[in-house]
Amino acid sequence: MKVLVTGSAGFVGQHVVRRLIDAGHDVRGFDIRPTPGTVSFVGDLTDVGDVNRAVRDVDAVAHIGAIGDVYQAAKDPVLAARVNVVGTANVVEAVLAAGARLVYASTWEVYGEPEYEPIDEDHPTRPDHPYNITKLAGESLVLAACRLRGLNGISLRLGTAYGPGLRPNSVFRIFIDRARRSEPITIQGDGSQGRQFTHVRDIADAFEKAIGSDATGQALNVVAPSMVSIKELAERVVERYPTQLVFGPPRPGDVPSALVSSQRAAQVLGWRTSVSFEEGLRELLDE
Amino acid sequence: MKVLVTGSAGFVGQHVVRRLIDAGHDVRGFDIRPTPGTVSFVGDLTDVGDVNRAVRDVDAVAHIGAIGDVYQAAKDPVLAARVNVVGTANVVEAVLAAGARLVYASTWEVYGEPEYEPIDEDHPTRPDHPYNITKLAGESLVLAACRLRGLNGISLRLGTAYGPGLRPNSVFRIFIDRARRSEPITIQGDGSQGRQFTHVRDIADAFEKAIGSDATGQALNVVAPSMVSIKELAERVVERYPTQLVFGPPRPGDVPSALVSSQRAAQVLGWRTSVSFEEGLRELLDE
Repeated sequence: MKVLVTGSAGFVGQHVVRRLIDAGHDVRGFDIRPTPGTVSFVGDLTDVGDVNRAVRDVDAVAHIGAIGDVYQAAKDPVLAARVNVVGTANVVEAVLAAGARLVYASTWEVYGEPEYEPIDEDHPTRPDHPYNITKLAGESLVLAACRLRGLNGISLRLGTAYGPGLRPNSVFRIFIDRARRSEPITIQGDGSQGRQFTHVRDIADAFEKAIGSDATGQALNVVAPSMVSIKELAERVVERYPTQLVFGPPRPGDVPSALVSSQRAAQVLGWRTSVSFEEGLRELLDE
Repeated sequence: MKVLVTGSAGFVGQHVVRRLIDAGHDVRGFDIRPTPGTVSFVGDLTDVGDVNRAVRDVDAVAHIGAIGDVYQAAKDPVLAARVNVVGTANVVEAVLAAGARLVYASTWEVYGEPEYEPIDEDHPTRPDHPYNITKLAGESLVLAACRLRGLNGISLRLGTAYGPGLRPNSVFRIFIDRARRSEPITIQGDGSQGRQFTHVRDIADAFEKAIGSDATGQALNVVAPSMVSIKELAERVVERYPTQLVFGPPRPGDVPSALVSSQRAAQVLGWRTSVSFEEGLRELLDE
């Protein structure tokens, strides 16, 4: 299949590109900077002409391009709205015109405070931050186009991704880099907030399965089962690279813990994680 | 107070302008076309410079400007995303910079299928259409700015507005105009879907009260208590201007009935409706 990956030069995008090439697809990238390792368009999601040119003749689009950095979205909500909402609306129109399939990268952070756990896809959404607000709006536009206009599309609500090529401001990078230099590691809050860190190769696998599936008009959680607290992560890093653990004030707007179930993705896509947290963390510590 | 009203040339905006002038405020309009009856800026919500110039020296903003026509939003979701989400993000930044208060025009349509009735403000939101999706995203950005950045703001989830100056494609205008010409009236679906039609002067009153209040960081339903079905509305129009009633196929994406409670707006703002449906409809029939 001819597949376009938006955000192809980013952390998740690069892994998805690689996975799709390995699976035998004809893959093109789309990003504001060139994509290593594949044919790519350099363009802007908010430019309808750029998007149309890139989508025109493909069979499927993995739409990952976004302001995916929560801190950048918080600092510039206007930019987050332009890229994550208008950009997605542009992609939806182009995919409809091309008669292609759309797989949208959403996030587990759309849920907000849990009303029950584990959280399934029917749980209410109460996003509370420019990042998850604009990502949910993009998802809602995709699903509305499925219902109202026959779009062939699906949304993956991804767990917090980690793995090789991680952003420099991710908690993994910060902890590991500081510990390697024997600088103290600061935990914001009491470190009890848990995350179901999901390995980026498992996420790439979900995209490959979702592109090949014909399930449409729904959102699926794509989140690894085991919950790891920030404190536990820090302790494991310190086990390998001994340094001091410091506790600082909690960060405003930090997303609370919530146990998310990916049972539906297992049923619909046959998706299961294959990289354990121990294995994924060891890989980063060994880098 | 110096108050800017965005969307001031539109149906709801014009009534809000009038109400605020009557209440003694110094009112300016902001719209893509000139506003009758007040000093106004002609500008575009998606243009950050336009928005900043208009908001710079005001004490409060009633942000009503939007793609408010659900059919237009359905036809052009990209435009709805630009105006309703990016435009609102622009307004939030400008209001924060000015240290002003923000009253945002949201909609009862954010709720979707009711999980319980009457629907209060804690009810989950499941918007399903480019109009209510983008309006909710705007509201969420406003409320996130209250929580994360100290914005002084509130959101009013308005009932379906009716009254003098209604859009030509509103169900009131269509039914009344056709009946006056003795043309048949077509009800889409069985006409049982109910609406809590809310008179535009009551809505304008809610804006005036919300601007004067110091309640912040919350959404309030501003919806008239009585529920009228589309069939009942058609029958009342036909009573006055006898013509034939015809039933057509339901419209895809039509919002289902749901009883919404405005008890919280009564408590927080002291808002109550003063125009009954009988009175409001008679005024339109007499026009």
